[in-house]
Amino acid sequence: MERNLSVNRLAWTLVGKLVENHAFYGVKVSKVDSGATIVDAGIDAKGGFEVGRLVTEICMGGCGKADLTNKRYGDLELPSIFVYTDHPAIATLGSQYAGWQISEGGYFAIGSGPARALALKPKGIYREIKYRDSFEKAVVVLETDRIPPARIVERIAEDCRISSENLTLILTPTASIAGATQVSGRVIETGIHKLRKLGLDPGVILSAWGCAPIPPIHPVFANAMGRANDAILYGGIAYYAVEHDHEERLENIVQNSASRYSKDYGKPFFEIFKKAEFDFYKIDPNLFAPAIMIVNNAKTGHTFRSGEINVDALAKSFC
Amino acid sequence: MERNLSVNRLAWTLVGKLVENHAFYGVKVSKVDSGATIVDAGIDAKGGFEVGRLVTEICMGGCGKADLTNKRYGDLELPSIFVYTDHPAIATLGSQYAGWQISEGGYFAIGSGPARALALKPKGIYREIKYRDSFEKAVVVLETDRIPPARIVERIAEDCRISSENLTLILTPTASIAGATQVSGRVIETGIHKLRKLGLDPGVILSAWGCAPIPPIHPVFANAMGRANDAILYGGIAYYAVEHDHEERLENIVQNSASRYSKDYGKPFFEIFKKAEFDFYKIDPNLFAPAIMIVNNAKTGHTFRSGEINVDALAKSFC
Amino acid sequence: MERNLSVNRLAWTLVGKLVENHAFYGVKVSKVDSGATIVDAGIDAKGGFEVGRLVTEICMGGCGKADLTNKRYGDLELPSIFVYTDHPAIATLGSQYAGWQISEGGYFAIGSGPARALALKPKGIYREIKYRDSFEKAVVVLETDRIPPARIVERIAEDCRISSENLTLILTPTASIAGATQVSGRVIETGIHKLRKLGLDPGVILSAWGCAPIPPIHPVFANAMGRANDAILYGGIAYYAVEHDHEERLENIVQNSASRYSKDYGKPFFEIFKKAEFDFYKIDPNLFAPAIMIVNNAKTGHTFRSGEINVDALAKSFC
Repeated sequence: MERNLSVNRLAWTLVGKLVENHAFYGVKVSKVDSGATIVDAGIDAKGGFEVGRLVTEICMGGCGKADLTNKRYGDLELPSIFVYTDHPAIATLGSQYAGWQISEGGYFAIGSGPARALALKPKGIYREIKYRDSFEKAVVVLETDRIPPARIVERIAEDCRISSENLTLILTPTASIAGATQVSGRVIETGIHKLRKLGLDPGVILSAWGCAPIPPIHPVFANAMGRANDAILYGGIAYYAVEHDHEERLENIVQNSASRYSKDYGKPFFEIFKKAEFDFYKIDPNLFAPAIMIVNNAKTGHTFRSGEINVDALAKSFC
Repeated sequence: MERNLSVNRLAWTLVGKLVENHAFYGVKVSKVDSGATIVDAGIDAKGGFEVGRLVTEICMGGCGKADLTNKRYGDLELPSIFVYTDHPAIATLGSQYAGWQISEGGYFAIGSGPARALALKPKGIYREIKYRDSFEKAVVVLETDRIPPARIVERIAEDCRISSENLTLILTPTASIAGATQVSGRVIETGIHKLRKLGLDPGVILSAWGCAPIPPIHPVFANAMGRANDAILYGGIAYYAVEHDHEERLENIVQNSASRYSKDYGKPFFEIFKKAEFDFYKIDPNLFAPAIMIVNNAKTGHTFRSGEINVDALAKSFC
Repeated sequence: MERNLSVNRLAWTLVGKLVENHAFYGVKVSKVDSGATIVDAGIDAKGGFEVGRLVTEICMGGCGKADLTNKRYGDLELPSIFVYTDHPAIATLGSQYAGWQISEGGYFAIGSGPARALALKPKGIYREIKYRDSFEKAVVVLETDRIPPARIVERIAEDCRISSENLTLILTPTASIAGATQVSGRVIETGIHKLRKLGLDPGVILSAWGCAPIPPIHPVFANAMGRANDAILYGGIAYYAVEHDHEERLENIVQNSASRYSKDYGKPFFEIFKKAEFDFYKIDPNLFAPAIMIVNNAKTGHTFRSGEINVDALAKSFC
């Protein structure tokens, strides 16, 4: 796989832009004792759409692009994020995926972004996609509303095998504009997880794009998180160009890949979550997918598709 | 408020791009005797969509972004401008607002853009939004089809308390592509004026986006100006994320904020203007608002909305 | 006409970006013996959407912009390319147009892009648009799936009157994502050819924009080429702001300019091509036009339009 593509190197250039133009992006930049840089994009800082867009690109390891626009969903006019990448496995599984559980003494956060490709968290994914990064600097994105303690910051640097002053942490709370934007920016990634779960090797995906609405802000974490999920489950579209040798098998995978092929489909996520007594493991994992999944097999020219935008569920969730 | 955000500094970088790539942008750059730079974006120069887009970002003091796309409005396919900002009060009231009336010996023009934040025109606004810029260079945008006389240029520099060679004036006639583009780029600003008039403190707005069609060019000023207004009144959408403590009061403000809550609503602006005997002060000021207004209260999670796109009025005006 | 606008100079900056970030763009960069640079964007390299977007801008001689987004066409959700330029004649006829037939000893390719404006291929066009470039470097785009032989590369440099080391060739196969993207990016150009054929002087066009879907990849050249044509014929929109003195004549031209005013209109291009026994010259040349053509006369304010998106033909072709 692409040997010269360093997700941390590409993302570091974007982080440089973010830090230099901190007033424009509405972020607060500080250094902790160990020398690491903390970029607050929505805790004490105000953040916004533009930093959410840039954090999406950083999260994809600089291997994808994100643009904001507006789209109509039934009667709703919503800001939307359009993302695309020509390195789908690396950008999403190798970087954007929130796959690094970081906890220590009561602090808990999930890490995503390019630093994972140095720390190899989780290792299985990197073996699967045959990628690992090699760079002396690292960026990690934490979806959190608390500044992490010094010990956590040091451990991240250690796990990445870099010195602390070469580490940048970006913090985005779910219940913030930047947070909501960068979660909707995960629509390609969400679809890849589902395709992989159904048996598709992520290595066959050539390019991908996706689009999802950015939900209105809700001050309560559980509701904000619910809306963030609904944006993708009921409003997200993901499109993949793949090279696949078994047309029928591919068709089968795609047919079952949209969110509607889950028994929990249809209600706002917050209600599903509540019914599951706020236990993620009681929710049907098949639910986690974009509303529309489209796959073009570049080996045959055919395109398969499943699912539909659910404007009623969006309206119920967002109003 | 954001102390480090200098609208003139941010805009100056964009002006540098404009001047350096003048052939690409289709503008004519010249220096007047006092040393000030004049960028003609549609008088003797041809201008176009791209300079209109960039002038929109310059007008917002570099604190917002503008992208061009195309949208369908009923049977019309129109170029459209999508704008967003995470510093809505500063970008619009503090910079983009055409609030500086500049006249001298028969020459009259309305100034907008970051220079206003140095000259504090009008002073009341800067007191209200608690912002003023401090920078040694200034950019002003004049919606005019005449090169301003030397005395006007000098007075602008004096009012900004900068030396003339540090002043850049950008000229965009209403009846030009660049002019039409940057007027449609004022959709967020138009909505903020209306919300403010209805009692909303602009300081509570966290982020905003808007979208409006760019009208086809009309060679006659009054008709071009009419279409520019119609683009926002009948085709514009504006969306604000706010932090508001009084939900009911906010709902009330939003309900009355779209253009349709005006007694003059419905006809192309040119006809309204004609009926008013071309006297702006006879037009119901409530008319000046986007077609759709949407406000999300980040303190409660609710979203309020009023108005609708009026494709018939757009078709009447634009064909 | 714009004397300072050098299509090769503007495009060279974009080529620099492409070469420097080759891993990100998924291209393979190599040097041939004569010193020329070859950028493979889809033969041995993988390419993708983003390089297709950038090659579109390069093809337009850096005088236009291209953005990717997604659009709905009936039941199809497709990636789409939005392009615009404020130098329509130079960007399209003077650069993007695939008007340079390059063949030697069994190798055949069609060249497009800024190098044409140095080699003046074909000469008539440059006389017509009163433009020629003068720059010591050149970029040519070849729609091909074979690396050109050394002799071809040398001849291109000779024709451009530059030394070989100052020549960059970009190769994009039709049956690749980059290839499909940059063909859809020719929607403005396709419309200009048709308007010109119907009698419009391209010099009266001030600015233009266009949008077309990017077709799903088909591995067979003839099918890929068919879909590339269908994207524009059945899904493309082009919009021109012109200055025209004869309103009625202009209206007439526009009325007949959309693809539907061809006797071959309606079927997927591959079927038309097959019926014509794969002989281009047997196809009605009026077919080659965007689905929707819109022209705004800036001298009168009127807008003329013809054609409609044909979602059935798109569905037949793309599924």
